[in-house]
Amino acid sequence: MSDAERWRELGQQLRVDSIRAAAVTSSGHPTSSMSAADLMAVLMSKYLHYDFDNPDDPHNDHLVFSKGHASPLLYSIYKAAGAISDEELLTFRKFGSRMQGHPTPAIPWVDVATGSLGQGLPYGVGIALAGKKLDRLPYRVWVLHGDSEMAEGSVWEAYEHAAFYGLDNLTAILDVNRLGQRGETMHGWDLDSYADKARAFGWHAIEIDGHDVGAIDRAYGEATAQQHQPTVIVAHTLKGKGVKEVEDQPGWHGKVLDHPEEAIAELGGERHIVVNVPKPDAKGEPHTFETTGPLRLPTWKRGEDVATRRAYGDALAALGSARGDVVALDGEVSNSTYAEIFRDAHPDRYFEMYIAEQQMVAAAVGLQVRNWVPFASTFAAFLSRAYDFIRMAAISQANIRLCGSHAGVSIGEDGPSQMALEDLAMMRAVHGSTVLYPSDANQTAQLVAEMADREGIVFMRTTRAATPVIYDAGDEFPVGGSRVLRQGDDVAIVAAGITLHESLKAADRLIAEGIDARVIDLYSVKPADGETLRAAAEATGGRVITVEDHWSEGGIGDAVLEALSEGELPTRVVRLAVRDLPGSGKPAELLSAAGIDADHIVQAARSLVGAAVAG
Amino acid sequence: MSDAERWRELGQQLRVDSIRAAAVTSSGHPTSSMSAADLMAVLMSKYLHYDFDNPDDPHNDHLVFSKGHASPLLYSIYKAAGAISDEELLTFRKFGSRMQGHPTPAIPWVDVATGSLGQGLPYGVGIALAGKKLDRLPYRVWVLHGDSEMAEGSVWEAYEHAAFYGLDNLTAILDVNRLGQRGETMHGWDLDSYADKARAFGWHAIEIDGHDVGAIDRAYGEATAQQHQPTVIVAHTLKGKGVKEVEDQPGWHGKVLDHPEEAIAELGGERHIVVNVPKPDAKGEPHTFETTGPLRLPTWKRGEDVATRRAYGDALAALGSARGDVVALDGEVSNSTYAEIFRDAHPDRYFEMYIAEQQMVAAAVGLQVRNWVPFASTFAAFLSRAYDFIRMAAISQANIRLCGSHAGVSIGEDGPSQMALEDLAMMRAVHGSTVLYPSDANQTAQLVAEMADREGIVFMRTTRAATPVIYDAGDEFPVGGSRVLRQGDDVAIVAAGITLHESLKAADRLIAEGIDARVIDLYSVKPADGETLRAAAEATGGRVITVEDHWSEGGIGDAVLEALSEGELPTRVVRLAVRDLPGSGKPAELLSAAGIDADHIVQAARSLVGAAVAG
Repeated sequence: MSDAERWRELGQQLRVDSIRAAAVTSSGHPTSSMSAADLMAVLMSKYLHYDFDNPDDPHNDHLVFSKGHASPLLYSIYKAAGAISDEELLTFRKFGSRMQGHPTPAIPWVDVATGSLGQGLPYGVGIALAGKKLDRLPYRVWVLHGDSEMAEGSVWEAYEHAAFYGLDNLTAILDVNRLGQRGETMHGWDLDSYADKARAFGWHAIEIDGHDVGAIDRAYGEATAQQHQPTVIVAHTLKGKGVKEVEDQPGWHGKVLDHPEEAIAELGGERHIVVNVPKPDAKGEPHTFETTGPLRLPTWKRGEDVATRRAYGDALAALGSARGDVVALDGEVSNSTYAEIFRDAHPDRYFEMYIAEQQMVAAAVGLQVRNWVPFASTFAAFLSRAYDFIRMAAISQANIRLCGSHAGVSIGEDGPSQMALEDLAMMRAVHGSTVLYPSDANQTAQLVAEMADREGIVFMRTTRAATPVIYDAGDEFPVGGSRVLRQGDDVAIVAAGITLHESLKAADRLIAEGIDARVIDLYSVKPADGETLRAAAEATGGRVITVEDHWSEGGIGDAVLEALSEGELPTRVVRLAVRDLPGSGKPAELLSAAGIDADHIVQAARSLVGAAVAG
Repeated sequence: MSDAERWRELGQQLRVDSIRAAAVTSSGHPTSSMSAADLMAVLMSKYLHYDFDNPDDPHNDHLVFSKGHASPLLYSIYKAAGAISDEELLTFRKFGSRMQGHPTPAIPWVDVATGSLGQGLPYGVGIALAGKKLDRLPYRVWVLHGDSEMAEGSVWEAYEHAAFYGLDNLTAILDVNRLGQRGETMHGWDLDSYADKARAFGWHAIEIDGHDVGAIDRAYGEATAQQHQPTVIVAHTLKGKGVKEVEDQPGWHGKVLDHPEEAIAELGGERHIVVNVPKPDAKGEPHTFETTGPLRLPTWKRGEDVATRRAYGDALAALGSARGDVVALDGEVSNSTYAEIFRDAHPDRYFEMYIAEQQMVAAAVGLQVRNWVPFASTFAAFLSRAYDFIRMAAISQANIRLCGSHAGVSIGEDGPSQMALEDLAMMRAVHGSTVLYPSDANQTAQLVAEMADREGIVFMRTTRAATPVIYDAGDEFPVGGSRVLRQGDDVAIVAAGITLHESLKAADRLIAEGIDARVIDLYSVKPADGETLRAAAEATGGRVITVEDHWSEGGIGDAVLEALSEGELPTRVVRLAVRDLPGSGKPAELLSAAGIDADHIVQAARSLVGAAVAG
C-alpha cells in the first residue's frame, strides 16, 4: 500500500472510531471530528514525533486540540497509536472515564484542557516559547484549530506573539469546515480571509484541500522547513466528510449520527490499523539556567515604607537567582508591577506579553507544561480579562502563579477602571486556587518564595502605595496561616493588605477609648485560617469586623463568614468594604469615602462594642 | 487665519491644556495626550458633529477615547468646545471632580467608561450597529485608539465585526506614537503592520503623518466618503509632541512633565480658543420597531418538563413583540441558549456575534448608549471571557442584560470546560449587579420581563436540563424576593435552579423521617431576600443548608451567609456545593458525585437535626 493509501485508510478509521465513540452515550461531536481526520492521519503517521509510552519525554512534540470538541478524533488517534484500547475508546463521556467530553490532562498525553474555544493556540505559543527559549530543544507544537474559533480575539493575540517571537516550531492546522454550531461561520470557505490575516500578522500561510493527503503531506513538509516564522495550514474541509447524510450539512454540530451503523459501512467499516507514530529525536538535554546559590530573599527593616508590588519584584528576582526554573511574564506594565526587576536580572527567562492578558496567562500555562515555574503579572483589574483562561487553567491542573498589582481604591487618582475590586472574588472562585494578599514587604517576599512550590492557580494581590514594614525579615508566613497583630477580646478586626494598616491604626486609637481590639492579618485569604478566626469570634463574643479594599461580595468578608459558619457561635460580623462606585482622588480620600479607613473601623468597633454593652 | 493654521493652533492649545490639567495633582498622561492633539483638533473643528448642549440628541456623533488615559486631551477638547470652563478642567483627578483619571459617564458627553485598553473600538462597534441597524440615522462613531492596545485580542474581534456588518459609519483613529507604558510597542512606527492587518480584516486603511493637519483633513474626508466599509486612519505621531524634553522619549508614560511652565512656553503659551463644533444634522427621527400589543409572556402548566434556557428564549421573543426597544445578541450558540427564538421572531433586532464574547458584551454596552435594551447570551462559563468588559460596563453605568446557560455540573457529558461553576461569584462581584437564577419556566419568563426595566448589569443563569414547572403562570417573582416552597421548622434548605428541585425531593423524603424542612427558592441571588433567610434561621434554630451547582465560593452559600450575618443568631450553615473537579457523566451522576443531589441534602439535614438533638 502506498503512503497515500495508508493515510486515507487511517483517516477513514479515525472517522469510523469517532462515530463509534460518540454513539456510546449518544453525545459528542463526530462531524467536527470527521472534517479533520485526514489532516490528523498524515500528521500522526509522519510528522508528529511522540512517544506514547513516555509522555514526559522532553523531546516529544506537543499536539493541542484547540477545537476540543473534536475529542472523538483525538481519542481515535490514541487508539490508532496503540495508546488506548478500543474498549477504553468506547467509554467516551461515561462517568469516571478519562475519555471526557473535552480533553483534559486526566489523560497523560493531553497537555492542556480545551473546550473553551480560542485557547489552544495561545497555549501552543507558550509551549513553543518553552521549546525555543527555555528548553532549547527542537520539539514541535501542532495546534488543530477550528474555523469558528477564529472569531475569538485571543487567537489573534496568539498569532501576534507567535510571529513576534519567531516561533517556527509552531504549526497551526486550521480545519475550515465552514459550519459552526448554529450555522455558517462569518467567512465560510473563504480560505484567503484566514490566510491573509495570518500573513498580515507575520505568519507563513498555506492553503490546501484538507482531504487531499498528498497536499497535506506537502504542507507539513513546508511548515517544518519554514525558518523564523510560524506556519498555518488553512485547510478546506467538509464537516461530516464521508457520510452523505451529514456531510457539509447544517444542523449536525454536537450531534451523533442517526444511523451510525450505516455511516460506518459507508466509510468502509471498522478498521484496527495501528500506526507507528514516529519517536522523538532524543538528542540533547533540556537547557537549564545557571543559579547563584541558595535563595536569599530581600529583606526590609521595620518601619521602612515599601510597596508590596515592589517587594514582589525584588523577591521574584531573588527567587530567579536561586532557581533556574522560575520564569516571569508581564502584560506591558512591568514598571508598575515591578516584574522589570526580574527582567533586568534574568532577561533570558522573561517574556514581555504586551497588553494581551489572555495570551499572558495562556503562555504561563504553556510554559508549565514543560515544568517551568511561571509568574505572570499585570494590574489585578486586568486579570479579569483572562478569567476564562484562569478558569480553564484550573481544569488543566496547571501550576501557575499570578500577581495582580494596583488593588482597590487605594491606587488613587487613576480611577475605577484601574482599581481591582473583584479580583479576590474572582480568584477565590477558581478550583483549587490559593489567594494571597500580603501587607508588608517581608511578608510578600516570603510568600513569593512559597508560591513557587505551591500547586494549582496561585494568586497574589499587591498594593500600589508604599506601606510600613511591620514584620521582621526572618518571619514565616505559611499559606493557610494568619497573624494576630494585636491581642484583644472586645472586638476582632480582620484585614489584609492596605486595610491591615488602617486596622492597626484603628486598634491603637481604640485602646485609648478602652476598647481592646484583636487585629488579624488574613494574608492567606484562601485557604483561610479558620481556627484563628473562630477563636477570635469566641473570645470577642462574636464581634467581628472585616475590612477590605474590594467590593463587599466574594472577598475577605465572605472568606471570614465561611470560616465562622463552621463554628456554631452567635456572631455579629460587620463587613466594611467598597460599596459605591469610586472616582479619582488621593488614596486617603478614597479609603475614607469607601468607609474602609481607620476612622470607619473605629466607628464600627465602637458601635459593635456599644451594642453589646447595651444588649 | 487659514483652516490649517487654526487647527495647528488648536492642537497646541490641546497640548498646553493637557499639560496644565495633569500638573494639578501631578498625575495623568500628558504625553499620550499630546501625540493625538492634532488628530483631535481637526476632528472637532470640522468632522465631529456634536451638540454639547444636548448630549442626548440622537443625531449626535459619538467620540470614544479607547485610549482612556488620554483623558487630559478629551477634557481639553471639552474646554475648547466651550462645554466646560478652564476652572473645571483644572479639577482633573481631584476627589469629587467628574474629570476623573479615565473618562466615565459621570460626564454627560462620555458614552462609555474606558481605561481598560482595547475596549473602545468594541463599544464603538456597538454604537455604530445601533446607528446603522436600529436607529437608522447617519451619525458617525469616532474611536481614538492607541497603538499599544492593538495587542488586545478584543480589538480584532471589533475589526472583524465592524467589517462583517459593513459599518462605514465607524472610523478608528490609530495614534501610533510608538511608545507604550514601559517601552516600545511590538511594531514601533511600522504603520504598514497595522494597516495590513486592518485591510486583511476587511477595513479601508489610510496611513498618514498624524501631525500634518492637511493630511488629517484629507483622511477624515476619505473616511466619511467610504461606503460599506469602516476606515482606520493609521497616524504616525510623536508621544509628547512639541516639547523637546519628552518628545518621543521613553520613560514618560503616565508621568507629568518636570517643567510644565517651560513646556507651555515652548508650545507657544496658553490659548483660549473656543471652537464651534459642527452641530449634527437633525433630520429624521430614530427608527422604531413595530410591536404587536401588550406583553403576553409564554406560560407553562405545572408538572411540564421545560428547561429554563428554553423559557428564556420564548419569553425574550414575547418581550420583543411587546417592546420595540428590546434587542438580542448571542455568541454563536443561539440554538443552545434559545436566543434563536428571538432571532426568528425579530431578525432585524438580533445580532449574531459569533464566538466573540468580549465583542458581544461590548456591543450590548454600545447599543444601550442609544437606549436600546440589549439581552446578550452564551454559555455562562463563557461569560468569564468577557469579565473585564462586564466590570467596565458597571463603571459605564450601562444597563445590559446577560443570560448564561448551561450552568453547573448538571449539564452532564460535555465536561468541566462547558460547566459554569464560578459565574455567580463573578457576577455578584460586579458593582450594582443583579443576579437571578430561576428554577422553573414560568418564573424565568416573569424574570426576563423584569430584566428589561432593571438598571445596571443584570445576569440570569439558566439550566440546560428540562426541569418540572412548579409555579403557576400568573405568579410574580420580584427581584430581591424569594419563595418559601415547603414550610418547616427543623431545618431550612436554600437553593435555586437545578438544586431547588433536588431540595424539594429531599424535603419530601425528610417528612417521612419526621423532619420538617423549610425550602426556600432564592431565585434572586443578588439582591437576596435577607428577611426571609433570617426568619428561616430563627425558626429552625439556625440550622440552614445551602445547596448550589457552583463552586463553594462566592455563590448562594456566601449570599446566604452575608444575609444571615446581619442577624445575631447562632447559625450552623452547611454549604453543599461543588468542591472537586468534575468530569463527564450523566447529570444525575454528576450531581451525586458533587454531593448536591437530594440524597446528600437528606444526609446533611439528618446530620444537622441530629446534631441539634444530640446537643
